Amino acid sequence: MIKVAIVGYGNLGRGVERALQQNADMELVGIYSRRDPSTVHTEGAPAYALAELEQQKGKIDVCILCGGSATDLPVQTPSLTKDFNTIDSFDTHAKIPEHFANVDQAAKENQTVSIISTGWDPGLFSLNRLYAESILPKGETYTFWGKGVSQGHSDALRRINGVADAIQYTIPKNEVIERLKAGETLELTTRDKHLRECFVVLADGAEEAAIKEEIVTMPNYFDEYDTIVHFISAEDLARDHQAMPHGGTVLRTGITHEQTKQVIEYNLQLESNPEFTASVLVAYARACARFAKEEQFGAFTVFDIPPKYLSSVEDATLRKELL
Amino acid sequence: MIKVAIVGYGNLGRGVERALQQNADMELVGIYSRRDPSTVHTEGAPAYALAELEQQKGKIDVCILCGGSATDLPVQTPSLTKDFNTIDSFDTHAKIPEHFANVDQAAKENQTVSIISTGWDPGLFSLNRLYAESILPKGETYTFWGKGVSQGHSDALRRINGVADAIQYTIPKNEVIERLKAGETLELTTRDKHLRECFVVLADGAEEAAIKEEIVTMPNYFDEYDTIVHFISAEDLARDHQAMPHGGTVLRTGITHEQTKQVIEYNLQLESNPEFTASVLVAYARACARFAKEEQFGAFTVFDIPPKYLSSVEDATLRKELL
Repeated sequence: MIKVAIVGYGNLGRGVERALQQNADMELVGIYSRRDPSTVHTEGAPAYALAELEQQKGKIDVCILCGGSATDLPVQTPSLTKDFNTIDSFDTHAKIPEHFANVDQAAKENQTVSIISTGWDPGLFSLNRLYAESILPKGETYTFWGKGVSQGHSDALRRINGVADAIQYTIPKNEVIERLKAGETLELTTRDKHLRECFVVLADGAEEAAIKEEIVTMPNYFDEYDTIVHFISAEDLARDHQAMPHGGTVLRTGITHEQTKQVIEYNLQLESNPEFTASVLVAYARACARFAKEEQFGAFTVFDIPPKYLSSVEDATLRKELL
Repeated sequence: MIKVAIVGYGNLGRGVERALQQNADMELVGIYSRRDPSTVHTEGAPAYALAELEQQKGKIDVCILCGGSATDLPVQTPSLTKDFNTIDSFDTHAKIPEHFANVDQAAKENQTVSIISTGWDPGLFSLNRLYAESILPKGETYTFWGKGVSQGHSDALRRINGVADAIQYTIPKNEVIERLKAGETLELTTRDKHLRECFVVLADGAEEAAIKEEIVTMPNYFDEYDTIVHFISAEDLARDHQAMPHGGTVLRTGITHEQTKQVIEYNLQLESNPEFTASVLVAYARACARFAKEEQFGAFTVFDIPPKYLSSVEDATLRKELL
């Protein structure tokens, strides 16, 4: 049995708790949170204070870190990797090289293993970009996201004066995906690829027209997109917008010779983004435990991990049944 | 530069020659064929007799074996792996364990590397089955093929008395794929998943109705499918059916918790099956050369190869640009 601890218990941590129930070779030893453990309502696993985690050194095979990329993981992953093997889903793309270097140093100095930036993007989407570009060196890669909630854009809406609450969906333009798949070569702007749909609850006294204008012209977040704004009640927001669907497409269109077109498409349709991300983390936790057993220490990403390390099935059976 | 030889020069071998032109870190040193080299019309690379290959021991990094799975590869791959690192696209699923064992023994005894059964199925489809099943342990995997030419079924048509020539396309039932993606749980028979479409040129004096009956009732090949038979002229066959398109879909539908559905889809649309398969072989040839350099000897499959080994781009750049 691979002994696993969950660090951080929001939507992602809860998703990991659920995913572990589907993996018979793993045992959840505890959930560690910064909150008072008595206020952490798990689905069955014992909750502990994060401060108690270091006493478990040597008793946990992998810690699955479920904090946020903005402030938690840049500190937690290097720090916990000094004592434990770790997995995270660090997704601030621009800071991945720096994060990797910090975690790699901690892992190598302390003979531990960390697999960073797992999940689906970065993670499975990255893998598909790598495989597809290696196989079709002459071509174009496109990544589309959605339909799904963007936390960053939802937060940007909520920071507007006069907005009581809001949620933003990123929606890929499927007709563009279909044209690319059909072999068209398109020069795509930001506006061509995605649509942004906002559901906004106004604060008392706020004015629809002014708020809408502020949204659609907001630099970086909305000005380069076609943006649809709906004003709804707090009740409607609570009733209709609690699910966390997401997904997206990685498309590689390439040419193998003269005009011979080849298309590789990878597509995710997720009813729960955090539960799916959690399932990816758990599969890579298995790989992490194996790397540690083999004393392959350091920081790694999905690019480094042989696919078979994700499976609980033995190699000969994989070759027989899945190859 | 990775020095590559092509062994066997049919459609796949020609595809490899073309793919190598797109990979600046590889050098094609020669094409080895059982035919008289003066009759082998390459696109520029020198052609040699297969018997001359063994004199090149030590001068070639990887031999890409482009023979057939029925009779060539079961003999060639273990034999050539005694002297060279090799890649093949052995695709007789039921015999993969035996083939793997033979090649593994040759590779380990002679300190070489062989990556067998690369291509797209087995190959990329296998990888996607493995990743998807590891991430969503609770679910169903479906593989659909086509639209594309099945050589086995085309050969079966040609063996019928009264058939002068023929080609068979396997066509996936897209409406079934859409229903599965929409979350339906379906018990699918063979007939539900694929359609078979045959284009047949009759021999002189043969009778349409009798041939059609023989086709649609042929055990193993057609009797379990809805089969459409068209009778066409030799000229039409030559004009309209020389392209070698193929493709298909690997679909994993799973549940992460209670009723939360998640769908992973991998889809290929190939204008040239042999050129695409060749492109996969070439990417794995790079991995093969690296395993050899690292003295990781033995037989391997796509399941064993860290994804980054397929790319000519260095690790830090991959993390920065593709993760």
